Amino acid sequence: MSKEMSHIRYRDPIAEARRQWTAHGWSGAAPGMAAVTTITRVQQILAARVEESLAPLGLTFARFEILRLLGFTRIGRLPMGKISDRLQVHPASVTSAVKRLEREGLITRHPDEVDNRIVLAAITPKGREVLGPATEAVNGVFESIELEEADVDALIALINPIRDAAGDHLDTSPGAGE
Amino acid sequence: MSKEMSHIRYRDPIAEARRQWTAHGWSGAAPGMAAVTTITRVQQILAARVEESLAPLGLTFARFEILRLLGFTRIGRLPMGKISDRLQVHPASVTSAVKRLEREGLITRHPDEVDNRIVLAAITPKGREVLGPATEAVNGVFESIELEEADVDALIALINPIRDAAGDHLDTSPGAGE
Repeated sequence: MSKEMSHIRYRDPIAEARRQWTAHGWSGAAPGMAAVTTITRVQQILAARVEESLAPLGLTFARFEILRLLGFTRIGRLPMGKISDRLQVHPASVTSAVKRLEREGLITRHPDEVDNRIVLAAITPKGREVLGPATEAVNGVFESIELEEADVDALIALINPIRDAAGDHLDTSPGAGE
Repeated sequence: MSKEMSHIRYRDPIAEARRQWTAHGWSGAAPGMAAVTTITRVQQILAARVEESLAPLGLTFARFEILRLLGFTRIGRLPMGKISDRLQVHPASVTSAVKRLEREGLITRHPDEVDNRIVLAAITPKGREVLGPATEAVNGVFESIELEEADVDALIALINPIRDAAGDHLDTSPGAGE
């Protein structure tokens, strides 16, 4: 590796891009560029940690989230559409993840008894068995995040306006239980 | 859609997950879960905006970043390894994006004259032609982000410890030019 490259490696590439943006006269866009790039990088780092924690259990975070959501319900099942709403994931992605979970015997799918146009996903005993250690694994990642609880609240307050602009429904009052 | 579903839709699913986490006794992990989930959601929203702005120009953000980086250099070319370092992207992803840019005539690849083990990527005149409107398009997204400049600085200060823990080199002093 050349001397120049090792020098470059030790500068923050996002801070450097922000300087370039400003130097090129795009100072109105430079903070937004830095925000988007930093959020993207941090999301990659966090996603890698979560996926790594679940890989030994044969799960991805997408599949874990579905199992966890079903595990929270009284009888362990939900309509596919509701899973999509609650996890803010495209219905096609939910279908794909659910099919994979079904193949592995962690959930079953069946039509709703009353309205057979609705497909229900239900967690199996085997699904519940893996959910315990999987929750412990991801919670290990969540507990070790480099943010104090007050920092998390500050972070969410800062970036929730972006979710609001995208049409996410943000509530401030405690919601009623299921 | 059932009455229950429309009720659920209007609660913030991330806030609801945080309440569930706390209710199940995982309060040590609840803030981290909320942080990871919020960052993931916001990253998706921002990435969709950026990709949408570039799609009419036949570019993705990954390909734009490479063109933009080459456009910043004096002679419009860089070693592949340096592109990977500067964009914090896996070398295989850089290779794949560069091949696509090459097929479209926006960059060329050739071995370094001095050390032919090094492959250089160089922006073409056609690449420079698309870079102007592409930069304007993404800057439109960056300028309209729902964060004031001070908020961006607060956000970066909050989450940069996560980059630091992942081994990103964060500088605080202004870097030397290229």
